[in-house]
Amino acid sequence: MLNIGPYTFQSRLFLGTGKYASGEVQKQAVEASETGVLTFAVRRMNIFDDSQPDPFESMDLSGFKLLPNTAGAKTAEEAVRIAKMAQAANMCDMIKVEVIGCDKTLLPDPIETIKATEMLLDEGFIVLPYTSDDVVLARRLQELGIHAVMPGASPIGTGLGIINPYNLSHIIEQAEVPVIVDAGIGSPKDASYAMELGADGVLLNTAVSGAGDPLKMAEAMKYAVEAGRLGFEAERIEKKMYAQASSPVEGMSKL
Amino acid sequence: MLNIGPYTFQSRLFLGTGKYASGEVQKQAVEASETGVLTFAVRRMNIFDDSQPDPFESMDLSGFKLLPNTAGAKTAEEAVRIAKMAQAANMCDMIKVEVIGCDKTLLPDPIETIKATEMLLDEGFIVLPYTSDDVVLARRLQELGIHAVMPGASPIGTGLGIINPYNLSHIIEQAEVPVIVDAGIGSPKDASYAMELGADGVLLNTAVSGAGDPLKMAEAMKYAVEAGRLGFEAERIEKKMYAQASSPVEGMSKL
Amino acid sequence: MLNIGPYTFQSRLFLGTGKYASGEVQKQAVEASETGVLTFAVRRMNIFDDSQPDPFESMDLSGFKLLPNTAGAKTAEEAVRIAKMAQAANMCDMIKVEVIGCDKTLLPDPIETIKATEMLLDEGFIVLPYTSDDVVLARRLQELGIHAVMPGASPIGTGLGIINPYNLSHIIEQAEVPVIVDAGIGSPKDASYAMELGADGVLLNTAVSGAGDPLKMAEAMKYAVEAGRLGFEAERIEKKMYAQASSPVEGMSKL
Amino acid sequence: MLNIGPYTFQSRLFLGTGKYASGEVQKQAVEASETGVLTFAVRRMNIFDDSQPDPFESMDLSGFKLLPNTAGAKTAEEAVRIAKMAQAANMCDMIKVEVIGCDKTLLPDPIETIKATEMLLDEGFIVLPYTSDDVVLARRLQELGIHAVMPGASPIGTGLGIINPYNLSHIIEQAEVPVIVDAGIGSPKDASYAMELGADGVLLNTAVSGAGDPLKMAEAMKYAVEAGRLGFEAERIEKKMYAQASSPVEGMSKL
Repeated sequence: MLNIGPYTFQSRLFLGTGKYASGEVQKQAVEASETGVLTFAVRRMNIFDDSQPDPFESMDLSGFKLLPNTAGAKTAEEAVRIAKMAQAANMCDMIKVEVIGCDKTLLPDPIETIKATEMLLDEGFIVLPYTSDDVVLARRLQELGIHAVMPGASPIGTGLGIINPYNLSHIIEQAEVPVIVDAGIGSPKDASYAMELGADGVLLNTAVSGAGDPLKMAEAMKYAVEAGRLGFEAERIEKKMYAQASSPVEGMSKL
Repeated sequence: MLNIGPYTFQSRLFLGTGKYASGEVQKQAVEASETGVLTFAVRRMNIFDDSQPDPFESMDLSGFKLLPNTAGAKTAEEAVRIAKMAQAANMCDMIKVEVIGCDKTLLPDPIETIKATEMLLDEGFIVLPYTSDDVVLARRLQELGIHAVMPGASPIGTGLGIINPYNLSHIIEQAEVPVIVDAGIGSPKDASYAMELGADGVLLNTAVSGAGDPLKMAEAMKYAVEAGRLGFEAERIEKKMYAQASSPVEGMSKL
Repeated sequence: MLNIGPYTFQSRLFLGTGKYASGEVQKQAVEASETGVLTFAVRRMNIFDDSQPDPFESMDLSGFKLLPNTAGAKTAEEAVRIAKMAQAANMCDMIKVEVIGCDKTLLPDPIETIKATEMLLDEGFIVLPYTSDDVVLARRLQELGIHAVMPGASPIGTGLGIINPYNLSHIIEQAEVPVIVDAGIGSPKDASYAMELGADGVLLNTAVSGAGDPLKMAEAMKYAVEAGRLGFEAERIEKKMYAQASSPVEGMSKL
Repeated sequence: MLNIGPYTFQSRLFLGTGKYASGEVQKQAVEASETGVLTFAVRRMNIFDDSQPDPFESMDLSGFKLLPNTAGAKTAEEAVRIAKMAQAANMCDMIKVEVIGCDKTLLPDPIETIKATEMLLDEGFIVLPYTSDDVVLARRLQELGIHAVMPGASPIGTGLGIINPYNLSHIIEQAEVPVIVDAGIGSPKDASYAMELGADGVLLNTAVSGAGDPLKMAEAMKYAVEAGRLGFEAERIEKKMYAQASSPVEGMSKL
């Protein structure tokens, strides 16, 4: 079980709700994933922009914890404004800080992310910042009092998976709060790998919503996160350069 | 469901039975894996060498299909002799051809593997040869009439995982019989990856028997194979160099 | 030719001077490398600590540009103090900002690096900050007016090479000042790869000083940087999944 | 210096002569590479098919050793016929055996390659077979008496570089004749890497002929092979998980 702030989650998979072909597909994918935490961009909600459709109209949200993000913010101030709007609409007490510093990579701005994190902690939010895999930055964010840290595996929506397992390992080894690997997951093996490295959870969206069959992929991700977590707990074998027989036959009777 | 020769298997995970700390651990790991196919070295059996303990003494084998292998053979003739011994003991009609050509890497000998395969097919066995990931060799073996092909991910027991996904992809793309990725799997992500590439199944042993907690790892592998298969069927997203917002906010109202 | 601030360098290889077995080995390795820029930790100099040996006693420095670094600093203030000491000793007008935020990985502290960079630019230094491969951080540093940016390939002294070629590519694509890949280079292929990605230069130390034969490795790195630069300028072929005959024989007369 | 059969070569780079934009570009690229060995498909020569242009019409071949290959052969018999035609035209006493077993990957057929190798050795040729990176197959070929073994880095013309450095390492470690890594090289780092693993030479073609600027790439490859060889001889540093300061400052006087 995963604890973030005062909350406990059965599933270690957080699912984004963007870009599904329809509300019905979204709903079924969410169910198949067995996630307990749904993320969404506040700016995509009709509380923010009433010309937007309600992304949750076909879903009963009562069983889920909502984790809105501040996507679209380029400064700390924008991020805070977006977070407060979500709070005012009773959508959340948790917020994923997402302050983008680069349009091409959608990678986060470290300085504005730190600022926004400080401001939102002051406002009493449960704060989960999305960050690069910069090891020291992850530590600096934790020193501010965040509730979980969310390093990216690779840029949002690229499906490139875990490019730098070393940095993620260092972040995990040094972490004092849960580490949720966020962004870049492309397939089940990536989600499993993040968990095997010792991550506490995985957040993904495009890997499911953009798959040929989002429902099957949602189910795949459920199993992948479970497999990776068990694999981490089970302690994998060391890698070796030379072979090791699984059924050694040395010293046995000759044919 | 996986079909090999006349047999149908619910699980796509084949589990080796070597090197467990005890018969009890082996039994529980097998159960946790939910495998339907158990593999073992004939030369490790007490039919072959009566000073050997019975590796299955604590297990009821009635629910399993047995896939003995010819580990320890360095020539086609030895492999055939081992296979016939297993057959004579009513252990199998299926055989995994394993003719090792290198003591350091335990990589298979292509020439002797082809010879042994031909001879065992002539004898009426259901033949699954263990082979390197040589693309043309896998095809040549299939032209002989084998029932499944078993390319290695990396050398036996190394835990190096899938070193050459290109070759495995080419083998899978060209295959006319099931492809079971065999050897080198180190952790759940590797098993998932093999399945995502389109393999029909995965055979592993040391990854489970050598893990800190073999039972948990057996369960992890069960989920990993399931995740990978579903991921393959679901068709993953393409990899991209640049980011793609999961919740695009372009064209939205300004803050 | 490489331009940084008012200076022009023939070689794109910067060589660190730490950890050589002797002054004589250091001198010969420097010569073999044909570098024009030598880096060193100010705190290792006897201007800083007169119990230290003079690391350059066997060398004539007249042909080199010196690039001292602020290794050992954990805060911006320490870095500035170290830089000023080097300046006062007439050692430099260029400084490599190195503010470490993690003892285990020696990865840089993004916040203190930014602060130190600002302060040293105000003091009139030619500033080259060592940074992680965080894409947006590299941009933020450039907006301050730095003269080159020095993202790490992997942690100092690890020899892990280029772990994240994507981030380096993004940094290079967006850079408005020279990009010198710094830290983690383990072998010639790593130096070549950095240059092939479009880096303007490479800084390395342990790969040479820690090699079995530092002189040969220094020469190897000279060629690797040259190979990588030419390879970048020559524009490599695209990667393909399927083969392309170099000597296509389709449509030719039958045998 | 590299010895193959009775011949000694200054350069460890073998260059293919296919697919250049013109004879003049080919000639200049060959010069820039400083190679001593030129390879070409016999079937592309006008001795074989007089409608073909002479690929060497603009070159003086007196300084080069020619290494024709049997590209286009799908059986051992075809390969032998092609080799004999080249011999009859006084083109060679060395032959690169290339018997393709797959049109999509142009990967070699292990069985036909072995057969052709045996037959050509019987005919007195100096034989260099192109093979996959199958470790045991490379050994079997050597047991026949070949003069060098040529494992592929990845499929011909793909530019995928060295996919499986483990197999190449095992082949090199076990080799009793020179190992020339052949096929798949995409950029200088790949050529350097092959040499760093201990290969005795590298053969490439498309990486140069298909580059934006073939002359520059030919020069890049010359340096890359040199860098990689020196890097191998110099013995690189071990890879480490955690950082190692190149200029350690522990135990030094406090600021």
